[in-house]
Amino acid sequence: MTTNHYPMPELKDLPEDIKARVLEVQEKAGFVPNVFLALARRPAEWRAFFAYHDALMLKQGGALTKGDREMIVTATSAANQCLYCVVAHGAILRIYEKKPMVADQVAVNYRKADISPRQRAMLDFAMKVCLRAHEIDDADFGPLHAHGFSDEDIWDIAAITAFFGLSNRMASFSNMQPNPEFYLMGRIPREK
Amino acid sequence: MTTNHYPMPELKDLPEDIKARVLEVQEKAGFVPNVFLALARRPAEWRAFFAYHDALMLKQGGALTKGDREMIVTATSAANQCLYCVVAHGAILRIYEKKPMVADQVAVNYRKADISPRQRAMLDFAMKVCLRAHEIDDADFGPLHAHGFSDEDIWDIAAITAFFGLSNRMASFSNMQPNPEFYLMGRIPREK
Amino acid sequence: MTTNHYPMPELKDLPEDIKARVLEVQEKAGFVPNVFLALARRPAEWRAFFAYHDALMLKQGGALTKGDREMIVTATSAANQCLYCVVAHGAILRIYEKKPMVADQVAVNYRKADISPRQRAMLDFAMKVCLRAHEIDDADFGPLHAHGFSDEDIWDIAAITAFFGLSNRMASFSNMQPNPEFYLMGRIPREK
Amino acid sequence: MTTNHYPMPELKDLPEDIKARVLEVQEKAGFVPNVFLALARRPAEWRAFFAYHDALMLKQGGALTKGDREMIVTATSAANQCLYCVVAHGAILRIYEKKPMVADQVAVNYRKADISPRQRAMLDFAMKVCLRAHEIDDADFGPLHAHGFSDEDIWDIAAITAFFGLSNRMASFSNMQPNPEFYLMGRIPREK
Amino acid sequence: MTTNHYPMPELKDLPEDIKARVLEVQEKAGFVPNVFLALARRPAEWRAFFAYHDALMLKQGGALTKGDREMIVTATSAANQCLYCVVAHGAILRIYEKKPMVADQVAVNYRKADISPRQRAMLDFAMKVCLRAHEIDDADFGPLHAHGFSDEDIWDIAAITAFFGLSNRMASFSNMQPNPEFYLMGRIPREK
Amino acid sequence: MTTNHYPMPELKDLPEDIKARVLEVQEKAGFVPNVFLALARRPAEWRAFFAYHDALMLKQGGALTKGDREMIVTATSAANQCLYCVVAHGAILRIYEKKPMVADQVAVNYRKADISPRQRAMLDFAMKVCLRAHEIDDADFGPLHAHGFSDEDIWDIAAITAFFGLSNRMASFSNMQPNPEFYLMGRIPREK
Repeated sequence: MTTNHYPMPELKDLPEDIKARVLEVQEKAGFVPNVFLALARRPAEWRAFFAYHDALMLKQGGALTKGDREMIVTATSAANQCLYCVVAHGAILRIYEKKPMVADQVAVNYRKADISPRQRAMLDFAMKVCLRAHEIDDADFGPLHAHGFSDEDIWDIAAITAFFGLSNRMASFSNMQPNPEFYLMGRIPREK
Repeated sequence: MTTNHYPMPELKDLPEDIKARVLEVQEKAGFVPNVFLALARRPAEWRAFFAYHDALMLKQGGALTKGDREMIVTATSAANQCLYCVVAHGAILRIYEKKPMVADQVAVNYRKADISPRQRAMLDFAMKVCLRAHEIDDADFGPLHAHGFSDEDIWDIAAITAFFGLSNRMASFSNMQPNPEFYLMGRIPREK
Repeated sequence: MTTNHYPMPELKDLPEDIKARVLEVQEKAGFVPNVFLALARRPAEWRAFFAYHDALMLKQGGALTKGDREMIVTATSAANQCLYCVVAHGAILRIYEKKPMVADQVAVNYRKADISPRQRAMLDFAMKVCLRAHEIDDADFGPLHAHGFSDEDIWDIAAITAFFGLSNRMASFSNMQPNPEFYLMGRIPREK
Repeated sequence: MTTNHYPMPELKDLPEDIKARVLEVQEKAGFVPNVFLALARRPAEWRAFFAYHDALMLKQGGALTKGDREMIVTATSAANQCLYCVVAHGAILRIYEKKPMVADQVAVNYRKADISPRQRAMLDFAMKVCLRAHEIDDADFGPLHAHGFSDEDIWDIAAITAFFGLSNRMASFSNMQPNPEFYLMGRIPREK
Repeated sequence: MTTNHYPMPELKDLPEDIKARVLEVQEKAGFVPNVFLALARRPAEWRAFFAYHDALMLKQGGALTKGDREMIVTATSAANQCLYCVVAHGAILRIYEKKPMVADQVAVNYRKADISPRQRAMLDFAMKVCLRAHEIDDADFGPLHAHGFSDEDIWDIAAITAFFGLSNRMASFSNMQPNPEFYLMGRIPREK
Repeated sequence: MTTNHYPMPELKDLPEDIKARVLEVQEKAGFVPNVFLALARRPAEWRAFFAYHDALMLKQGGALTKGDREMIVTATSAANQCLYCVVAHGAILRIYEKKPMVADQVAVNYRKADISPRQRAMLDFAMKVCLRAHEIDDADFGPLHAHGFSDEDIWDIAAITAFFGLSNRMASFSNMQPNPEFYLMGRIPREK
């Protein structure tokens, strides 16, 4: 039904630096998440994408936990209806938050999710960046400050939302499919 | 009225590689576009941002001209109501296309702009990536192929749109203002 | 954070006919899905709700399989952002379709789901009933007839969509939470 | 122009219980509202529909008057652009409220209607259930409590809105037309 | 509940030319439609408004009947949720079309109204002018030409839609109420 | 690509009163803005249009400056994506406000424009009239009164917004193009 306009390259054909990172991820995760191969057909874009990704998601310091960061990604990706990112980052969210149900809750309606008021404020802001960034003004910073987020943390929230808006559009447009492994990951607490 | 949550760093405080690029741009343009300083408060993000930018906008080869690329940026930024990017990239669009009126036309309503049918198809696709990427399917590729765009060119269109969606959200959220120089640039054909 | 305005009644306080059905479901599923208790605080509405539900979902005959029916419910509930129904009916969808990944796909973006072209046409129609029923006209019947759906089958699609629009609004408004059991159900193929 | 996909059954062909109700309505109203025949082609659905309808609309007790209930139906049906329900329930609204102009006002723009502040709050909540049920939270209950509505009354408002959302979709999809009698009913005060 | 910011002037205080027209309308209709007094507090605007109105609605020649014109006004006013104009012009529509039910049908959902395919095409175009004028292009003219509308007739359709968009905004903003007489006018065929 | 359905009449063929005004404008501006010719093919509509225009835009008295009035027109026209009016009235806005950058700012995102808090409140109200006039109520008047606008000034804001909504629809539908002169006008402060 759908033509595959953008076939994934084979691992062996990738530049060395990309191949190294892919193998590292494979080692750690047990499989290669499709985004690593799908974007690798464009090495320069791949390098910029993952440099940006790492700067935002692997950042040390600041008030955002790794779980917070993945929660923003999951909510953003759901708002953008991106199958790849909801499934892949929802899996990571479950693992970091150690909550097997939280990703589905955040993806369907974060207002009903079992998250903290602080996380709720974080997602309200992220959704405004995602859907109506041009309307953001000073008044949007107050509720975040009240929950202990600094202006630097708020930049993190906005940047993660903006970056995954890019990721969502690339994945949807190019028909990127989540690896089957992601669907179940983090759902069975004991197994991890 | 608006607090400046994210003051721009001074040139002298920037890492050497960033400073070098900023000086190069200043040399070429006669001033430093604010985005180069505004994002530099986060060097890692700055480097990824401009690596991505260059991969997409300075790319050699493919069917998209530099004017086409800036036209996509201008239309995307207008759809996202991003003041910085409409004004700054609209200026560059005028220069590349050598059309003093085209940026305002594309920003207000690209359907009424004095552009080619090929560019119209390109912008129709970009707007779908911008606003409804989750609905893109095979049928959207046909009209672009008919105008001579290859699947790789279509990736370029989508990636530029997605990347500037990120840029737009960062600029709007952080209240980035266009340099005054951009407003007039490219409007007086002979003077350049 | 959220007040529970509508506490669920206890099983022992329910009318006999409702109690009997609840026990029957508990026997079959191993737990009582919250909707059976949440709505039971209004016995007359409960009886009408489940009579309607059964007429649509347990119907014999027609072209719609049980999997088709649950797929419509999942897509409708996702469009209405109803946490309870996406999680509960997504679980049943996985079981009927014997596809552990299909519910997440349909909930996030059914256009990217691994479903048949016939099911895709079915969901396109359901989404129009869900979101723009006032615009449905003769032209919407053609694609469904082309996939072998009769006018009676089309009534089934519309009625399921309309009924779960009611269910979605009741669940969201009253803050109904899915039972934890649903989240994992049907995800591990062999175990069932 | 429009095919009649779902012809109404004849009275004589209906099951006894349905026929009895239809005759009772005809006796009272002087004609058979089309919804009674249109849905009767599916007896099980008909029975559930009217059981639900009666539980919500003929309910004894609570703060909602019959006029309030019909006002919610009219506003909901207008928001869903359902011709049958606006015309039929608008007629009943006029009669219960003894206000020949109120139905047109509520249908076109309830914010401009000659209704009480209490009814205005009721309709504001109903419209949120109708259009954005997933966003309802505790803060929505306050204004209703301030007007004397209990949580049970609020359930009534939500349930009526949700049920007629179902009814609206069925009527629009199946092209149900209001009986000519409804258009004038309740417009000439003295004649009733 | 609502402050009357813009009280209507008294007839005796109006300029002679306006008073003359008001008396003429009163003579013909039996009452003074509120729009004639409400706008008269600004004589210069009043004169321009009615000159424009007359040029479009009392025009001689062209394919649009008076009924067609009022049908466009009713559909436009319903799309803009303008109480005054739906009720007032719906009344005139009933009279010109000699169809007591047509105004309610057009106001609730013109797609279900008992109108000709030619009128349906006319309203489809009017709704695009009303809601998305910036997207109109050559392709929108074809269906109208096919029904015998000339480019001049199409200008009439667009201009009536645009003019009543102005009228709708003024009436809604200033809280203009329809005269009670309009609600019943044209509903009882024989009495006229 | 686009058929010119509505060619502009020649100056010599216009009625005397229209010709006189056109010559007067040409004298003053150095060229004839296209709207003067484009609408002149319908003399009666032309006369009403400019009478209305003059009553609103050339009005003496009240709190709105000429710059305020053109700012409302620019914001409204941008919201309606009308190329002609954004470019033409943006030019006049630059001249009256003596700010070469303000028109682009207001057109792209007035929330980021270098305007006064009083003008921001004025545009917030204008945008509500433009996009959701049916929701305006008493609460919308408070912020404007706080900035010193009287009810008469508020009428001016609403009327200008409503009138240019008409103008925008006519220009977009009929494919009216701005004169090239407008694009540069008011951008070079000293030259004027």
